[in-house]
Amino acid sequence: MTDFPPLPSLPAWSWIQKYQAQYLVGDITAGIVVTSLLIPQSMAYAMLAGLPPQVGLYASIVPAIAYPLFGTSKVLAVGPVAVSSLMVASAITKLAPQGTEEYVNLALTIAFLVGAIAVVMGILRLGFLINFLSRSVISGFISGALIIVIVSQLDHLLGLGVPATGSFIETLVKTLSLMTHINLTTSVLGLSSVAILLYFNQPLVDQLKRLGWSEAQILPISKGSPLLVVILGTLITFGFRLDQTEGVEIVGAIPAGLSGLTMPIFDQEIWQTLLAAALAIALVGYMEGFAGGQAIATKRGEEIDPNQELIAFGIANISAAFSGGYPVTGAVSRSMVSFSAGGNTGLASIITAVFTIVTVMFLTSWFYFLPQTCLAAIIIIAVYKLIDFPTLKRMWNYDKADAIAWLCTFAAVLLWDVQAGIIFGAIIAIALHLYRTSQPHIAIVGRLDDSANFRDILHYEVKTSPQVLAMRIDENLYFANAKYIESFINQAISDRPNDQPEVTSILLVCSAINFIDTSSLEMLESLISAFKSLNINFYFSEVKSPVMDKLEQIGFVNVVGRDRFFFSTDIAMRELS
Amino acid sequence: MTDFPPLPSLPAWSWIQKYQAQYLVGDITAGIVVTSLLIPQSMAYAMLAGLPPQVGLYASIVPAIAYPLFGTSKVLAVGPVAVSSLMVASAITKLAPQGTEEYVNLALTIAFLVGAIAVVMGILRLGFLINFLSRSVISGFISGALIIVIVSQLDHLLGLGVPATGSFIETLVKTLSLMTHINLTTSVLGLSSVAILLYFNQPLVDQLKRLGWSEAQILPISKGSPLLVVILGTLITFGFRLDQTEGVEIVGAIPAGLSGLTMPIFDQEIWQTLLAAALAIALVGYMEGFAGGQAIATKRGEEIDPNQELIAFGIANISAAFSGGYPVTGAVSRSMVSFSAGGNTGLASIITAVFTIVTVMFLTSWFYFLPQTCLAAIIIIAVYKLIDFPTLKRMWNYDKADAIAWLCTFAAVLLWDVQAGIIFGAIIAIALHLYRTSQPHIAIVGRLDDSANFRDILHYEVKTSPQVLAMRIDENLYFANAKYIESFINQAISDRPNDQPEVTSILLVCSAINFIDTSSLEMLESLISAFKSLNINFYFSEVKSPVMDKLEQIGFVNVVGRDRFFFSTDIAMRELS
Repeated sequence: MTDFPPLPSLPAWSWIQKYQAQYLVGDITAGIVVTSLLIPQSMAYAMLAGLPPQVGLYASIVPAIAYPLFGTSKVLAVGPVAVSSLMVASAITKLAPQGTEEYVNLALTIAFLVGAIAVVMGILRLGFLINFLSRSVISGFISGALIIVIVSQLDHLLGLGVPATGSFIETLVKTLSLMTHINLTTSVLGLSSVAILLYFNQPLVDQLKRLGWSEAQILPISKGSPLLVVILGTLITFGFRLDQTEGVEIVGAIPAGLSGLTMPIFDQEIWQTLLAAALAIALVGYMEGFAGGQAIATKRGEEIDPNQELIAFGIANISAAFSGGYPVTGAVSRSMVSFSAGGNTGLASIITAVFTIVTVMFLTSWFYFLPQTCLAAIIIIAVYKLIDFPTLKRMWNYDKADAIAWLCTFAAVLLWDVQAGIIFGAIIAIALHLYRTSQPHIAIVGRLDDSANFRDILHYEVKTSPQVLAMRIDENLYFANAKYIESFINQAISDRPNDQPEVTSILLVCSAINFIDTSSLEMLESLISAFKSLNINFYFSEVKSPVMDKLEQIGFVNVVGRDRFFFSTDIAMRELS
Repeated sequence: MTDFPPLPSLPAWSWIQKYQAQYLVGDITAGIVVTSLLIPQSMAYAMLAGLPPQVGLYASIVPAIAYPLFGTSKVLAVGPVAVSSLMVASAITKLAPQGTEEYVNLALTIAFLVGAIAVVMGILRLGFLINFLSRSVISGFISGALIIVIVSQLDHLLGLGVPATGSFIETLVKTLSLMTHINLTTSVLGLSSVAILLYFNQPLVDQLKRLGWSEAQILPISKGSPLLVVILGTLITFGFRLDQTEGVEIVGAIPAGLSGLTMPIFDQEIWQTLLAAALAIALVGYMEGFAGGQAIATKRGEEIDPNQELIAFGIANISAAFSGGYPVTGAVSRSMVSFSAGGNTGLASIITAVFTIVTVMFLTSWFYFLPQTCLAAIIIIAVYKLIDFPTLKRMWNYDKADAIAWLCTFAAVLLWDVQAGIIFGAIIAIALHLYRTSQPHIAIVGRLDDSANFRDILHYEVKTSPQVLAMRIDENLYFANAKYIESFINQAISDRPNDQPEVTSILLVCSAINFIDTSSLEMLESLISAFKSLNINFYFSEVKSPVMDKLEQIGFVNVVGRDRFFFSTDIAMRELS
């Protein structure tokens, strides 16, 4: 921390300065493959957010250029993603009707707030806050959100005509009750798209591998399937005029050209209304992008800086707000594709942006006859594998508290609200953690054979001394467990069988205690003085240096008596027995 | 837990059945002494709550009979207390004007809700929840609340005429700005009362002790000082008609007789409005009473049951709601007086109730000329010593996190709101605890001389092995610290000086790890696989039995390799070096 980096620090210099010609092929290949995935996905996700499809394209341009300049993760594909899109819809659907200009402006505004929150958090180095969302909460949240996404897409996939608003349960009931009214042509188109996507995902890859194709040859074909579905769907719909003859819903007219400069709404009241949602989208979006970036960085043997990532994520979102977009983040699946296709540097992302600009300027009319059912199929196949029941099962086997947090988050997202779900889940996970540490494991220990090792009398054949009760508290002492520990020690003394000699010494083995807060220090003091009147003395062994230093400082060691503290349990038991 | 107690379980049977004649003198003495304290205090606290003085008397009757029948603490004096009274005022002042029947009914209703919450929590055995309020939060909260109480009493003490509503800051500013308008007669009466109370509290006790009086003789005189102040103040005011000639505010007419059956308001909307306040009053009230009860139980060598206490506290409050009272709890100071005066059983509390009934039925007219300034003096002297700056100072020296939680709670109570203050404080204390455990102490350890003991290389002269990096993580592994620990281990490897041999083994000493949650298990798995590619192997020593069992169960031990786990660090270092 002796020398400050020159401001503004542009992490991109590191890859721009060291750029080598040999990177170029990989970057261009990755740029093309990702674009073919991105164009249909970004339009589909925008529509999932209740926005016109071009908003998804706009959100894939400037942020995809801004991010690689400020981020430390080199191969992250930034743009619209499913979960953020759902959260945007959930936040602003109640504020303005979908399809209005106000709705689009609210989406811009939320992107701006998401960006501002992230930049401020990054500058204040608050990236660590993300750690308080446990794996269980994240997995439960994403799984719940993606189920909502899939159910919302059944409408388009089967041509049901479910009204856009309402809670998940309402949408689900409505969808199921309309199942008898499916549009047959739409359903055939949609389900065929699903079949093609599934076939290209794995069976085709396996077949080509058996034919001796290389990974590099297979990848563009496998990952090009969404583009194929878009082209086939559009041609068939156009050829048979399915929109007019069979009522197949199509994307329709998309204005050509870039969005130009757009302005988020600067209004205190609207900001207050959107703040909670923006915070949730910022946390979830950042986390999703960061997880993707980190996974790839690990594979590439690189390091990424959480706080700089937060700033880059924030700048990308602010740039989205001023260029007609909506909240973006690093898309895990597209980033993995970019990495697999040979993407080396941020140039891959910039090339994607260039292709998207070309698309927006010259090719939007080609999407007129694109059926919405194909986009629904693309979304469903993109997200269904991310629904994470295996993690739930593993948690159930390993740690019930994590499984409960998973289920609570999942249920809250589905039954209550997407935004509220993640906050509720985070609180549950923290509460369960606190509950666990409030009733710690306390072992009564004895000597193992003639060694200097002491172990739990319930798990090992050990020798104990009749007058000494040696206990190891397997937790830090703090306010939430002070009473529990006090009761446990009292109980341990009063539960002693009458035929045994009376206990004269209690030895607390402190090897697992990393701090003692004031509440539990007072508990210890009152316990020591209460047992003194019963002629039972307290001793301590294996107190860690940082804990001992603080006990010295507050005078506890002097009051209790320095001879009551032993370096090891072995020495303590020799002296006390 | 083999045989259920007969329902309804009445803990009072234990003392009623074993009652001995020799207890009677102590119980009667305690009953009389406590009554002399209770009568002025209960009227004063009711007025602090914005209620007519008789409400305080009513709240001292039925609850004081109900509590000893259901509670397990034998010498707890239940009735109105300062902090609960302040919280009641803060909760309902904005809902109805003081002095109206509606205001009184809201106070009844809040007592009912407090009681219902407590009974439900007691039945569900949720008494442990109280442990999540740390000592720092409780001390900061009570100190803040009592400062508000004292400032609010300056108005009455000096006869300023400050308007009753408004925040603490407004009241403080108003009080200070009106200091030039003090009522001289009122002030002389009030400050003389303060002087008498202070003199009786300690100097008189010391003098009588020097004269050879016994504790039992001194106590009724010392603790009778509030009654003396009331009598003197009333006589002087009546004698000189100070209410008319000098504008001294008096208590005025108090209706004679019991309140009869009163009904709380049964209205869903009002309940919702009052619920948060009722919850806060229930938690704080229960905690205050329980702390008092426990302190005396410890002195008497008795045990009290937290959940049964919660039920008794609840029943006392429900009974207050139906008998014209308002929220009550065990008053620490009056309980200590009862104990000191020789109170043995719940009969002392019942005797107090009987004397209060007599007072309400026959003596209320005696209080007509009682000046409010005397009551203000009684409140101020009763509470000022409980403002707990010494605890803040101690925490500042011992544990900054506790001191910060104290200050945050204190500031929130004074600057924001009494109810919000305790919730804010509790959140801050938990957040600070989580923050601390999210950045745990990690020690790189080495062998101490030739012993089997391993200690921190920063604190001891120890021998390390060049190829083995042995680290002891002094904290449980859970989601909030998984990333921190991962970074620390990565850093420890990359920070190794180049002139040293490369590390081939990392040994995690797990003696301080009491659980590993799913998030950190996944972190460990990814860390192990990342280091494997660098040819660095992971080993574990001193894994506790409960942790080991779970690692076995999920297959972690088999995947990592059973030979990677060592019973002791000593064995591990011998094998790995």
